[in-house]
Amino acid sequence: MYINDISDLNATIQEAIQLKKNPFQFANLGKHKTIVLLFFNSSLRTRLSTEKAAKNLGMNVMILNINDAWNLEFEDGTIMSMSTSEHVKEAAQVISQYADMIAIRSFPTLKDKAKDESELVLKSFLKYSSVPIINMESATAHPLQALTDAITIEELKDKSRPKVVLSWAPHPKALPQAVANSFIKIMQFSDVDLSITHPKGYELNPEIVKHTPVHYNQEQALKNADFVYVKNWSSYTNYGQVLVEDKNWMLSKEKLGAAKFMHCLPVRRNVVVEDTVLDSDHSVVIEQANNRTYAAQVVLKQLLESM
Amino acid sequence: MYINDISDLNATIQEAIQLKKNPFQFANLGKHKTIVLLFFNSSLRTRLSTEKAAKNLGMNVMILNINDAWNLEFEDGTIMSMSTSEHVKEAAQVISQYADMIAIRSFPTLKDKAKDESELVLKSFLKYSSVPIINMESATAHPLQALTDAITIEELKDKSRPKVVLSWAPHPKALPQAVANSFIKIMQFSDVDLSITHPKGYELNPEIVKHTPVHYNQEQALKNADFVYVKNWSSYTNYGQVLVEDKNWMLSKEKLGAAKFMHCLPVRRNVVVEDTVLDSDHSVVIEQANNRTYAAQVVLKQLLESM
Amino acid sequence: MYINDISDLNATIQEAIQLKKNPFQFANLGKHKTIVLLFFNSSLRTRLSTEKAAKNLGMNVMILNINDAWNLEFEDGTIMSMSTSEHVKEAAQVISQYADMIAIRSFPTLKDKAKDESELVLKSFLKYSSVPIINMESATAHPLQALTDAITIEELKDKSRPKVVLSWAPHPKALPQAVANSFIKIMQFSDVDLSITHPKGYELNPEIVKHTPVHYNQEQALKNADFVYVKNWSSYTNYGQVLVEDKNWMLSKEKLGAAKFMHCLPVRRNVVVEDTVLDSDHSVVIEQANNRTYAAQVVLKQLLESM
Repeated sequence: MYINDISDLNATIQEAIQLKKNPFQFANLGKHKTIVLLFFNSSLRTRLSTEKAAKNLGMNVMILNINDAWNLEFEDGTIMSMSTSEHVKEAAQVISQYADMIAIRSFPTLKDKAKDESELVLKSFLKYSSVPIINMESATAHPLQALTDAITIEELKDKSRPKVVLSWAPHPKALPQAVANSFIKIMQFSDVDLSITHPKGYELNPEIVKHTPVHYNQEQALKNADFVYVKNWSSYTNYGQVLVEDKNWMLSKEKLGAAKFMHCLPVRRNVVVEDTVLDSDHSVVIEQANNRTYAAQVVLKQLLESM
Repeated sequence: MYINDISDLNATIQEAIQLKKNPFQFANLGKHKTIVLLFFNSSLRTRLSTEKAAKNLGMNVMILNINDAWNLEFEDGTIMSMSTSEHVKEAAQVISQYADMIAIRSFPTLKDKAKDESELVLKSFLKYSSVPIINMESATAHPLQALTDAITIEELKDKSRPKVVLSWAPHPKALPQAVANSFIKIMQFSDVDLSITHPKGYELNPEIVKHTPVHYNQEQALKNADFVYVKNWSSYTNYGQVLVEDKNWMLSKEKLGAAKFMHCLPVRRNVVVEDTVLDSDHSVVIEQANNRTYAAQVVLKQLLESM
Repeated sequence: MYINDISDLNATIQEAIQLKKNPFQFANLGKHKTIVLLFFNSSLRTRLSTEKAAKNLGMNVMILNINDAWNLEFEDGTIMSMSTSEHVKEAAQVISQYADMIAIRSFPTLKDKAKDESELVLKSFLKYSSVPIINMESATAHPLQALTDAITIEELKDKSRPKVVLSWAPHPKALPQAVANSFIKIMQFSDVDLSITHPKGYELNPEIVKHTPVHYNQEQALKNADFVYVKNWSSYTNYGQVLVEDKNWMLSKEKLGAAKFMHCLPVRRNVVVEDTVLDSDHSVVIEQANNRTYAAQVVLKQLLESM
């Protein structure tokens, strides 16, 4: 599931907002349908909201942490005499038979750019699975988060074309670009005035950024913003590196101004953003997290209806 | 959920006994209601019985081991640049949106008395959650176990005011005082003749013990008991310490006499209590564990009815 | 649940094939019945297919990884002062009260032959549980896999009495004999021409092999086979040892000939079997894995009907 797969973004957002008003309207749509949630990595919101969404639709949910099963091999032609016990060719085909759709979370290595950009894990499941694959955050994309973000902006905007700024923020550990990538992509599809701000060296994939304006001066970039989406990511050019920990890039109440504050969570307080922002009524992160359920639910609903 | 929250203990116990007779009588009460079970620590009985209880009421159950998600921060104002990735302020508010109630297990450190007594984890969820919080054993209390114990005594007593003795027992590892605390509290609300026996140095929190008699001579204390509840706890005054491993405090068949033997489980055989006790018909620990389901179910039922 | 427990194998296989055609025909049979799946070891197929099977029958499924609970003690009379916190006597009796049946996976030590052959874990649950126990792979047996295999052969055979060969294959790690044992047992009950081939030193338990022919020359053994079931196992006589890593025993396309290739999965590609076999239409391993659901479902159905 990529953002490109959503045929009509506006209609999908409106449908999600309707589901939020009546989550159980389609409580029988998923009867006798099974979704397997497959986790290679940690999850709180994604796990709970996707499970909730599926159950709101009456689906059967089976959750598998990969470390409860076997180490998977993804390379072709390997002599599997080392640590991997099962090839994704078998795993994907087998799980497909127990599931009507499979949702997968698999983070990037942040060490091997080519491998991460190949989306080896997700693409392998797409290739070998015989049922639809849902991306619960892959190496380079987090489309259910992006859909959530678009729903949230649609709900909370008070003008037809709000100014939306994606701002980099400091973080002690190297983080993926996935959330930023997917947010940019969905905003480019949306009727918003989008711009990006980050320190030099944190340029994102130009194939994703395209003509979206990029500013190196955060303060100027944030001026008159309606929504400020804050997120750390590690360097894309010096792949996976933490180049700078310039604490000045932390979002403060002053820099936010009258705008609304967005973040995908989890967020490190007083590193990424000041307490005063998160604890103010400018922050919409909790509402945003709530919308994870309805972003997932609308996608599952559309998949169920297409079966 | 604390014992103090149960408005009418006797009515609650009778209701639990009714639920045990007909567990599926309210199988639709929890329809479209979700409980999230959040585990910071190991669990067998609590996990299975609470899940079972919720499903008996038709609820949707979502289980999250915190180590499948993120390390939570509980302190206010922290600069979160170290090992914690998410603040409980966000976590509790977010999970509240996916759940109609949240049940939490979080054991004490047994190192920092003030921190444990502040019930930081449970109280933080109580503070920031917008849905009811159920205590599945916190730093200082295990109310669902205590309610189970009261139900068990009510079912099995053969006199109106039985003699109930809580006896300390040896254990190789430092254990919390939670079970003892909650058992004492609920027995103080009940029509029983309660006393406590333990070696010197194992005095429990005086604010909990109050005027309940304490004996240092186990043999004398157990005389003519109807129910002997055996449980190890580490020292409260020398907080979290194992002071003595006096094997004589292990419960034997002789010391038990004609009384019934209770324990919350898990129990270390031939350390806490002799095989001959556990394998005799004086032991009611299996029946006691069975009642965990109905203690949880009556609490969930009351919460559902109040929604 | 052992193969010997299946009273009428042919009828059971036919019933499974019927369930596969209409998995939801008995979607209410398991209403208000609970199965607990207890995992001491890793699982992918067994976990997902057994959960799926139970839910197809409308059962409530509760899954417990033992490492989310306590270390269990299995020996009698132990002074439990070391690493084990709970005796199986209590655990089995307690879980029995939350479940209408319990399914258990517990692999062998591959170090202590007598202990493994005693099936201590499974037999302890059988002894102390008050509900039926289902074997999801024990130290010496994997009956649900064997039933799956028999269903698969019944579905795919094109002659009344096919030639079935169980062939040992190389593997870098010591593996149990459980799959081989159960496959031999169920094939001995079936109308097939069964033989076994393995290098010297890999003789299986003679009480299981009985009069089934054993060949040390793989190529000759595989001639004119209809089904070749490939599986590694460690030595039974030099218990748990990997004696030889003769790569010539890896199954190749040439050796397979016109036969169908079977394996229980997970399988190490190009160690146990060549890519060319797994990627050819001779391989039935995916269909075989699919049948895990219906093998489990027919067993659960029969258990539910007997309650």
